[in-house]
Amino acid sequence: MKYTLVEKIFNAHRVDMPFEDTHVLKLDAVFCHEITTPIAITDLQARGMDRVFDPSKIKAVIDHVTPAKDSKTAEQGKILREWARRHGIKDFFDIGRNGVCHALFPEKGFVRPGYTVIMGDSHTCTHGAFGAFAAGVGTTDLEVGILKGVCAFRTPKTIKIVLNGKLKPGVFAKDVILYIIKELTVNGATNKIIEFTGPIVDEMSMEARMTLCNMAIEAGATCGVCYPDMTTVEYLWDYIKDEFESKEAALKEYSKWISDEGANYEKVYEFDLSDLEPMATFGYKPDQVKPVREMAGTKVDQIYIGSCTNGRIEDLRVAAQVLKGKKISDNVRGIVSPATPGVYSQALKEGIIEIFQDAGFCVTNPTCGACLGMSNGVLASGESCASTTNRNFNGRMGKGGMVYLMSPATAAATAIAGEIVNSDLFKG
Amino acid sequence: MKYTLVEKIFNAHRVDMPFEDTHVLKLDAVFCHEITTPIAITDLQARGMDRVFDPSKIKAVIDHVTPAKDSKTAEQGKILREWARRHGIKDFFDIGRNGVCHALFPEKGFVRPGYTVIMGDSHTCTHGAFGAFAAGVGTTDLEVGILKGVCAFRTPKTIKIVLNGKLKPGVFAKDVILYIIKELTVNGATNKIIEFTGPIVDEMSMEARMTLCNMAIEAGATCGVCYPDMTTVEYLWDYIKDEFESKEAALKEYSKWISDEGANYEKVYEFDLSDLEPMATFGYKPDQVKPVREMAGTKVDQIYIGSCTNGRIEDLRVAAQVLKGKKISDNVRGIVSPATPGVYSQALKEGIIEIFQDAGFCVTNPTCGACLGMSNGVLASGESCASTTNRNFNGRMGKGGMVYLMSPATAAATAIAGEIVNSDLFKG
Repeated sequence: MKYTLVEKIFNAHRVDMPFEDTHVLKLDAVFCHEITTPIAITDLQARGMDRVFDPSKIKAVIDHVTPAKDSKTAEQGKILREWARRHGIKDFFDIGRNGVCHALFPEKGFVRPGYTVIMGDSHTCTHGAFGAFAAGVGTTDLEVGILKGVCAFRTPKTIKIVLNGKLKPGVFAKDVILYIIKELTVNGATNKIIEFTGPIVDEMSMEARMTLCNMAIEAGATCGVCYPDMTTVEYLWDYIKDEFESKEAALKEYSKWISDEGANYEKVYEFDLSDLEPMATFGYKPDQVKPVREMAGTKVDQIYIGSCTNGRIEDLRVAAQVLKGKKISDNVRGIVSPATPGVYSQALKEGIIEIFQDAGFCVTNPTCGACLGMSNGVLASGESCASTTNRNFNGRMGKGGMVYLMSPATAAATAIAGEIVNSDLFKG
Repeated sequence: MKYTLVEKIFNAHRVDMPFEDTHVLKLDAVFCHEITTPIAITDLQARGMDRVFDPSKIKAVIDHVTPAKDSKTAEQGKILREWARRHGIKDFFDIGRNGVCHALFPEKGFVRPGYTVIMGDSHTCTHGAFGAFAAGVGTTDLEVGILKGVCAFRTPKTIKIVLNGKLKPGVFAKDVILYIIKELTVNGATNKIIEFTGPIVDEMSMEARMTLCNMAIEAGATCGVCYPDMTTVEYLWDYIKDEFESKEAALKEYSKWISDEGANYEKVYEFDLSDLEPMATFGYKPDQVKPVREMAGTKVDQIYIGSCTNGRIEDLRVAAQVLKGKKISDNVRGIVSPATPGVYSQALKEGIIEIFQDAGFCVTNPTCGACLGMSNGVLASGESCASTTNRNFNGRMGKGGMVYLMSPATAAATAIAGEIVNSDLFKG
């Protein structure tokens, strides 16, 4: 038999024979944040089942509204904090050590090739960048995961996307995924896995691959995956060096998490992206995408650089490259939220925080906040935001607000111009 | 006749003969923020009086909840922003350029000796540090101020406080004002002016004097004032150098804003503070104050360094001196909010942001947020916070939460210990 990457993960984690279309998988990690997990905790307590299957496999963070914006969010944080203490969950990241879950947990080495991961968060698909199967789940699945360390999934059907060619300077993973979502549409991969492959993916950093996989859900996919390679090994090396004799040995081991030649795909897309230009969304759906060039001149009120999609160090570096020595327009307000304390510290060392500050950005702490209109940058009605986040749904960043999704480079250029514009990094 | 400083300001600004006990004063500045001013703006609009007396004398900032935490606060910001644009109020500080009003406006040179200032904010008394009369007012007074540039006040009665001796190392303006409030009680200066004088005030920086005057309201005072001197001139020099031939000339001019010998005081207190030790509050009233030593060992959940009381560069410097090379306790979370972009930038340059970050603090943006339980650090029920802010009222930083007011040095030491403790800067 020939298998896809995710079929292999299913085969390695299945705890019993599949029941019809359903496979119960052993979980390598259950990720938790303070918005969805407290509901599960409280319910488990009410049922007299306040237990966890394995505290070392549970990772928890306060990230959505941090520091707490009101009593409700403070209480949510408290429930998660006390639960983590009660059960000896050592990998709990409280205020000051906390960051956006899908940036923080990979940075801490919690995701490995071949892993199964669940979280009560739709962008859990991000972690597929490591050659793992990671899926967002609802409260019931999360409760079972916390209690028993298992989760049930349907037979995975995979869409393979081959990205050929070479990206032009000034074109980034965000532009690529926006283009792909446009091609697939928001329902194009519903309940399926997207495998991102090809020379363009091979050249991408882990950060860029995470951006790619992060938005798989915006085409409906359960998970986006990339094959592990030496880039994956290098990224994880500090955490895995005691497990392997050499990086080559790690690569050899991880290479089992690659689809077989001749594996069965639901569909295969081939895209040559050599001519791709920077993209942005123009409507309320993530597949309403066109070249930035065609949106040039569109006024915005706010620029937001951050989130699990584009708040990593590479994203901040690119934005800083555009912003260096410049001031943002008086007609806009800029907000940057480095996705994790690690990103923040690195950006400090490289002078990136200072560049943002000098340009007139508000440098806020790591948090999901503004991306989903929960804090730290909510829009008023009639306002628009050029944003490096992942969703442009109607009201996503605030009731009556409009969101234009784009890369950090485009967002930074837009901040300077006060209207949507291509960055100087893109030479056309 | 002999006059107090504030009587002189009244005499110079009175627009008509006093009516009984009431004096109508011409205003030199009306300060505005996004929580109280939008109510006035909306009401003036509803009355068909959407006008401002002088856009150059109105200064406005979004500072209480910034960036916006929800649609309501986003709309409040929008009302203020559009009002500022509509009326050509050039000194409007939007997200990214904004900071805590009582730190930002002095930093911009908006307060001068002899000025009259109002704002819809109780800590407006801060600006008295410049030898100005500055008072928090309600919506009606604010509306009249915006429309007409005048405000009515009762005949000012002044309490004079003479601070003798020399502060020990590790004892700061915050300790001084907590001690004074303890002595006066929370009603001790109700509707009065507090004049802070004596060798200890003479030695204080403008930042320290602002800390002193900021908390005058906690003893009930309408305003706290210090006499302008060369420290005042130096602080303002960049903004006033075109008005005066020399600093000496400025000092000479400003010296008219000093009480006459033999002026009439409601009461005079003399305190020798040579033996003062670091102080903290222990209850829900700002006069429930005792030495930190007596509170040692009290556990806290959160440490907050920031606010109009103690979020200035000197405060951050002192805290960083205590934190340098250390990690805060795993049992607490630390939050620091530099009070303005200027403070933030200076702290960046001096490596102070990095010290906070390395110590495990959450470095958030300039905002009032947590101090009044409105955002960025709200406590859950049963939690306590060691805080450099100004009010410890029941639920001030979050319903069911406890606040211990203290200096930045004590707060930093408390963060490291995880319980209230004197800093190493204080040798006892």
